[in-house]
Amino acid sequence: MSANILFAGFMLIVVQGFAQNPNADVSKGIFPKGEQGPAANFTGKAYNYGLVPQDSSLTTLVGNVYFEPGARSNWHTHGGGQILIITDGEGYHQVKGQPRQTLKKGDVVKCPPNVEHWHGASPHIGMQQLYIIPNTEKGIVKWLGPVSDAEYANVK
Amino acid sequence: MSANILFAGFMLIVVQGFAQNPNADVSKGIFPKGEQGPAANFTGKAYNYGLVPQDSSLTTLVGNVYFEPGARSNWHTHGGGQILIITDGEGYHQVKGQPRQTLKKGDVVKCPPNVEHWHGASPHIGMQQLYIIPNTEKGIVKWLGPVSDAEYANVK
Repeated sequence: MSANILFAGFMLIVVQGFAQNPNADVSKGIFPKGEQGPAANFTGKAYNYGLVPQDSSLTTLVGNVYFEPGARSNWHTHGGGQILIITDGEGYHQVKGQPRQTLKKGDVVKCPPNVEHWHGASPHIGMQQLYIIPNTEKGIVKWLGPVSDAEYANVK
Repeated sequence: MSANILFAGFMLIVVQGFAQNPNADVSKGIFPKGEQGPAANFTGKAYNYGLVPQDSSLTTLVGNVYFEPGARSNWHTHGGGQILIITDGEGYHQVKGQPRQTLKKGDVVKCPPNVEHWHGASPHIGMQQLYIIPNTEKGIVKWLGPVSDAEYANVK
């Protein structure tokens, strides 16, 4: 009898654990993982999977990036701005000269045209993000220098 | 000893069940459910949650719609076109005069500007979709008539 109670208790813990965190492995996203971004533009490993290519009709580029824990983009700008939608995990976004924002599943970021920013995962949890680059006729991306360890760690 | 083996076997089934279908309830999405769309524009229950409002800088409207099983939009057009990204569940998209497409998690739809289309859930499984309406200065949405039961069921 006590074995049955122990069994039932253990089962409850397992079921609750999965219900609270059904997608513990952030690397398993909605889309395929894609191709690793070049070391010239990223610190650590970030994987890009394109969803909507540039065209003259919708003039909007869409894709998904999975940032491994600790990975982040260089500083960069978008001529038409950028929208980020976080679909899993945890990370950061920072506009030059402004405080670093913490991001989690369901958060949305709007970055205006030609504003310098970076985005990436937290040190111990990866991040899945959709990106939308509107008005691609104004320029897609202009890459700048790496985000230093001090900038990443938000050291004042 | 046999009780331990039974226990281990049962645990394996539970763990595998959750791993294979971690989000069986399609109504539980990444974002809050939002507000029910008006009966004038939707058949059945569809819920809209706005993510990025219209503005003059990004000129891109973004949001999430959860369609309950059987729910669908009316026929409609977008002046700047539309991109749909399916994040969970199962549904349909159809451009006027073209075959009905079946949609599932991870699928992406591109609808050109001023093209008549509808989208919605399958009869028995709901659908979570992100929508992107680019170039809002060209018009956001023009609502047309309902999708008939025969159109929805793809009766030739």
